[in-house]
Amino acid sequence: MSAIEEKFARLGMETAPGQESRQKEQQLDLRGTPLSGKAVDFSHGDVDAFQPIPGSLNSFLNGVEKLGGRQAYTEYRGGGDTLAILSQKLSLFTGSPIDAKQELILTPGTQGALFLAMGSLVERGDKVAIVEPDYFANRKLVEFFNGKLVPIRMDYFNVHNKAGLDLDQLEQAFRSGVKVFLFSNPNNPTGVIYSPEEIAAIAQLAGQYGVTLIVDELYSRQVFDDRHYTHLCAEPNGPAQMVTIIGPSKTESLSGYRLGAAFGSPIIIERMEKLQAIVSLRAAGYCQAVFANWFSEPAGWMAQRILEHQQIRDDLVGLLRSCEGVKVRLTEAGSYVFPQLPPLDVSIKDFVKILRTHAQVTVTPGTEFGPQFTNSVRLNFSQDAASARAAVERLIEITNRYRA
Amino acid sequence: MSAIEEKFARLGMETAPGQESRQKEQQLDLRGTPLSGKAVDFSHGDVDAFQPIPGSLNSFLNGVEKLGGRQAYTEYRGGGDTLAILSQKLSLFTGSPIDAKQELILTPGTQGALFLAMGSLVERGDKVAIVEPDYFANRKLVEFFNGKLVPIRMDYFNVHNKAGLDLDQLEQAFRSGVKVFLFSNPNNPTGVIYSPEEIAAIAQLAGQYGVTLIVDELYSRQVFDDRHYTHLCAEPNGPAQMVTIIGPSKTESLSGYRLGAAFGSPIIIERMEKLQAIVSLRAAGYCQAVFANWFSEPAGWMAQRILEHQQIRDDLVGLLRSCEGVKVRLTEAGSYVFPQLPPLDVSIKDFVKILRTHAQVTVTPGTEFGPQFTNSVRLNFSQDAASARAAVERLIEITNRYRA
Repeated sequence: MSAIEEKFARLGMETAPGQESRQKEQQLDLRGTPLSGKAVDFSHGDVDAFQPIPGSLNSFLNGVEKLGGRQAYTEYRGGGDTLAILSQKLSLFTGSPIDAKQELILTPGTQGALFLAMGSLVERGDKVAIVEPDYFANRKLVEFFNGKLVPIRMDYFNVHNKAGLDLDQLEQAFRSGVKVFLFSNPNNPTGVIYSPEEIAAIAQLAGQYGVTLIVDELYSRQVFDDRHYTHLCAEPNGPAQMVTIIGPSKTESLSGYRLGAAFGSPIIIERMEKLQAIVSLRAAGYCQAVFANWFSEPAGWMAQRILEHQQIRDDLVGLLRSCEGVKVRLTEAGSYVFPQLPPLDVSIKDFVKILRTHAQVTVTPGTEFGPQFTNSVRLNFSQDAASARAAVERLIEITNRYRA
Repeated sequence: MSAIEEKFARLGMETAPGQESRQKEQQLDLRGTPLSGKAVDFSHGDVDAFQPIPGSLNSFLNGVEKLGGRQAYTEYRGGGDTLAILSQKLSLFTGSPIDAKQELILTPGTQGALFLAMGSLVERGDKVAIVEPDYFANRKLVEFFNGKLVPIRMDYFNVHNKAGLDLDQLEQAFRSGVKVFLFSNPNNPTGVIYSPEEIAAIAQLAGQYGVTLIVDELYSRQVFDDRHYTHLCAEPNGPAQMVTIIGPSKTESLSGYRLGAAFGSPIIIERMEKLQAIVSLRAAGYCQAVFANWFSEPAGWMAQRILEHQQIRDDLVGLLRSCEGVKVRLTEAGSYVFPQLPPLDVSIKDFVKILRTHAQVTVTPGTEFGPQFTNSVRLNFSQDAASARAAVERLIEITNRYRA
């Protein structure tokens, strides 16, 4: 195989969330009668169950009809008016000043922001530290840019009120020459929040060793049980260079518009814009108008949304814990739950396919988040509450059929 | 400088189309009184002057309101229904069969398609042939992926009824180990169409030397004077691997929705989808619904649009030719004209800044399309006809003030 063939062979996608329908037909060891019920796709949130921020579509229409060409062709980093307003909102939210002209870029989704940030920082052979488990695209991005993956353990089961990141291992990695450290907070897939002490330690170590940070805060608005959330960008002793990524695709259900944002060091933002110029030019111009509603939701809307998710979380986590051998940490923020299943007598990839074929339940295998998570699955519980409950009941029934 | 600093230093953007407002203030040699008039931005088309395909917004609303979550979260390569319909339309248009499931991907603009195609084919050190002049991002993409640029001359001034590509130089390049050849047809910035013989020769040479082709047909629907246009993908003796890129951002004025498409060899399309999964996930889901109107324009709409552009072209080319020393080839397809100006006593970059500052006319310097085009500028004449005429009159007046 040529170098590029090898690279794309590693960039697997078949089991990635949302791609299940492209899986090739194969013989599965189906046991018992099929379980019927409304199909639930836990690979992403259901924007029909949790609708976009009210008024979003009107903002879009305003972009098309009132602003016209000015909205269609913004600068690559995004329209100036949107940048000005959004920089203020994000400053307020994070407690760190953001210069609208130099420190903020709008992107096609947070995925777009992540790709641009990594492409702006990682060259062949650069060491990049990532957390295990963490968002599945992180490791793929390191591979695409020919970086060297340095995994850091997160012992999320055996700690309280912190993520459980192995800070000794992190320092060792930084000392060994890691150039970039990328992590999500709240963590995807476990839904844990990094403690103030963990965030302070990461910031301090990055400063000490000259490591650039990419902090993915996609789910940072959806925090449960009034927990404390710490924005690394507001740390007084932070690194020389960092970028924070956030967007309205999840809690706010605006994924269909593909909007994201990144803010941080001007030198990184400028590179990201240069790269965006050849990647996709800009976040869709008309869609950018929808940013107007973000952080300007109707009074009480966000609190209600968080409450509804908290109730679904409690319901599903309770159900999962009723299944013998299932281990699950209570989600602290975001819409993911990452249960570890009891030992099964089929591989996790086959289990996931069986679950989809035999019980109309789509989940993402743990191995997408780190090779060692061979017994875990991720569920996005931003779903219709009753359908989700019934689907988790089917998940438990199928689990029971395949116990090792 | 580190390798990545050097790379981004080369990825200049300041003079790229649409980025002019980010240019740093500097002292310019402004001569004579400022020329007033309605500002015209020839760096891209004016979608207020030439509006999107009628019904596009309704299709978008249908995507949001009727299809909902199904439309928001399509597979990475695009929604199945859209792929099915679009593959048929593009088959009809190009005269080559396209398998909806294996050979087509939807992308955020044709820029997105181009980036994914290049990222799927070019590794460090790979030789990539590009045409000079050609679309400015082509050379930047080669640089970003650490390929080796092999420029091929196009003698567009001294030929008739063909583009003027140097086929001997192309064969020499292919023989020397070029892996990918990327070109736009109609050519951006000159607006020339490759002849049937040129296309047949490119296809044959690519087949003979095992070169993969990327053909950018973005402007292939807007052909003037009933000229013949040849789709390389329909050649009987084509290369083993190729991909064709097209989209509705230009003639159809749908740029604000960021939509593009690529079709071709399944192995390339599959890699492009894997890459899209980490670049931006998908073309904005709701926006994908707007593809319904593409190639389904109201009767007579496209003919009228082409006619109106032809009239503006004739007007502006006539004006430009009235200016002593200006050399310009009549645009055969697309909305670009690429006049060579008489010798000036300022650099082309300064000239472009002076023109913008002193006469409210924005054009793109020729050096964006190849380092040797130091006396040319590109204009996108998809503009309000009267404003465009007045702006070209100001361009001529400024040219006269800076003759060497």
